[in-house]
Amino acid sequence: MTVRIQNFFKDSPHSTPCLVIDLEVIKAKFLEFQQTMPKTKIYYAVKANPAPEILKLLVELGAYFDTASVQEIKMCFDAGATADKISYGNTIKKERDIATAYGMGVRLFAFDSQNELEKLARVAPKSKLMCRILCDCKGAQWPLSRKFGCESDMAQELLENAHKLGMIPVGVSFHVGSQQINLHTWDDALAGAAKIFHDLAEKGINLSLVNMGGGFPAQYLTVTPDTQDYSDAIDASLRKHFGDNIPDTIIEPGRGLVGQAGVLQTEVVLISQKSKYDDVRWVYLDIGKFGGLAETMDEAIRYPITTPHDDDDTAPCIIAGPTCDSVDILYEQNTYPLPVSLEIGDKVYIHATGAYTTTYASVAFNGFEPLKYYCI
Amino acid sequence: MTVRIQNFFKDSPHSTPCLVIDLEVIKAKFLEFQQTMPKTKIYYAVKANPAPEILKLLVELGAYFDTASVQEIKMCFDAGATADKISYGNTIKKERDIATAYGMGVRLFAFDSQNELEKLARVAPKSKLMCRILCDCKGAQWPLSRKFGCESDMAQELLENAHKLGMIPVGVSFHVGSQQINLHTWDDALAGAAKIFHDLAEKGINLSLVNMGGGFPAQYLTVTPDTQDYSDAIDASLRKHFGDNIPDTIIEPGRGLVGQAGVLQTEVVLISQKSKYDDVRWVYLDIGKFGGLAETMDEAIRYPITTPHDDDDTAPCIIAGPTCDSVDILYEQNTYPLPVSLEIGDKVYIHATGAYTTTYASVAFNGFEPLKYYCI
Repeated sequence: MTVRIQNFFKDSPHSTPCLVIDLEVIKAKFLEFQQTMPKTKIYYAVKANPAPEILKLLVELGAYFDTASVQEIKMCFDAGATADKISYGNTIKKERDIATAYGMGVRLFAFDSQNELEKLARVAPKSKLMCRILCDCKGAQWPLSRKFGCESDMAQELLENAHKLGMIPVGVSFHVGSQQINLHTWDDALAGAAKIFHDLAEKGINLSLVNMGGGFPAQYLTVTPDTQDYSDAIDASLRKHFGDNIPDTIIEPGRGLVGQAGVLQTEVVLISQKSKYDDVRWVYLDIGKFGGLAETMDEAIRYPITTPHDDDDTAPCIIAGPTCDSVDILYEQNTYPLPVSLEIGDKVYIHATGAYTTTYASVAFNGFEPLKYYCI
Repeated sequence: MTVRIQNFFKDSPHSTPCLVIDLEVIKAKFLEFQQTMPKTKIYYAVKANPAPEILKLLVELGAYFDTASVQEIKMCFDAGATADKISYGNTIKKERDIATAYGMGVRLFAFDSQNELEKLARVAPKSKLMCRILCDCKGAQWPLSRKFGCESDMAQELLENAHKLGMIPVGVSFHVGSQQINLHTWDDALAGAAKIFHDLAEKGINLSLVNMGGGFPAQYLTVTPDTQDYSDAIDASLRKHFGDNIPDTIIEPGRGLVGQAGVLQTEVVLISQKSKYDDVRWVYLDIGKFGGLAETMDEAIRYPITTPHDDDDTAPCIIAGPTCDSVDILYEQNTYPLPVSLEIGDKVYIHATGAYTTTYASVAFNGFEPLKYYCI
């Protein structure tokens, strides 16, 4: 927790649960990405946290923006971004939303199917298109399904068809899975991208862009490689597969850029046991799966948690949220060691919660309000 | 789909996704519960759908209300309910929230631990308390975890302690799991409750109430027993375990009361395949897990889905939502047979979506608005 966040919690009146985001951390992380990967354009994955303060900061720093909807495009505009800095990266778009984005000046779109290509050709003529390919997500802590992307053969055909329809088939995109700690996955994906570049070049279609997506981690309980490690691995793979013709590249960090900047303060509502012989305590917090911590689904993301008694002896706890929904349990298979002296009313801190929390919160499940946040 | 809902979709301008709730269906279902289980008080589980129109209707029909938070208690008051009709059924409450509820006149609370009992004794003196016990949820399509309730031995001790602290230990509550289609689970739970009644009577503490919770189903894809079947099974178990001294009883239907009343209209955003050799289509709708269909988690709740082409030949489809989150897939393990003639832009109807949808929707994930609804 940064000193600035510590001071906020000490000095500012607020109720729990509440998320505080230190913009300095985001700035430092952005500059780190920029310095470590100077040839790569950084498209912030707005869905990770669309807080206006974050978008404004990133506009000032010269970031690009990867958006999932027309609403996100509008938020970027509101923060001062220009259309040339925005990609519409969702492969699933209503035709009227594509038309709206095109009307707003957006000219870079992702797609992965013939039907989506035809929509784009109808309402976003001559736009630049990235075709998303499926890739192996082994090693990702929040792995991706087959929802986005298509097989390589189909991608080639789609990019050819894009060319025939008067669009600009600019390149290939992939995503190796969120919170990806296996550096080799980028190598496999880049090999696949290079093959498409090569095969299409033989047909006279010259691609120029590889969108390497996200996957860059926040620091949760598991130790993760440094940004430099990612950069080195990606550079080596680019040289290996593209030789002297290294294409333009994009990355789309979301979690990797803002995750670390947030700390969530929550209150212990209840500590209990299910029987006298139970040696695991249940610790109930005033935030849970439906209040913003949806990524604890299947206990995928394991946030670091601190308490005011961390020097004391600990014992294993199951951690759950405050709603009457029985799936609203954060950690049960992976119990957390928490101080035996932990008490009802204590403030507990959940770290690295800057990404995928505020917008994931439910509108009013069980009557509880969505997660409040403060950017400092 | 009722004629009233059909007419709404035909006649009223609206954008998708949108949920329409037919209040007549809720009224009929409430009267059915009342007629089938005339000796049982019906506490509506407000969390299932706290729409003011629904609460007002149920107030008029004489319903009681099971609430999860102070906010839900306020909503019941706003709808015209009086404090004597309200229970604060969440076993996880902040002490200041208990105090607020008590100040509003609420006198019936659930608990399952010594710590919660002590909070109640401090700020809600002489209130009536139900101790929740753990029970087997086998057969539930949305089974409950061990989050709520305690072992039977502990429940006895807690109810004794409640008595010593000047509270009114009124009875035992349990919940056999949501969408419970195995009628025998009530028998096991009632046997457990009866044992506590018997053992405490020997100590001079006379309990009078069994809160049998929810579990009553909506009609999803699986066929479910009728309300009469539930009533018969519960009556038989009450006689079997309590003999001539049948206690007062409460049920807390949520899904069972409002689930069936809602139909959600959604639009097909994209239909695609991942390769030429794929014989399963991906159908992407404009609503998904984060727009209100959270109960598709692990494909637990399988909603009936209809399209404008249901007389045509069908083929298996994976159904997914519109967000850039790869877990936003509704049905993949259990593919749905949808018409081969289904097209992008078609309106698709998701039935029995009146419960656990509107409040589950995320505030703005990917920039998408929460689920709109209309009560008719």
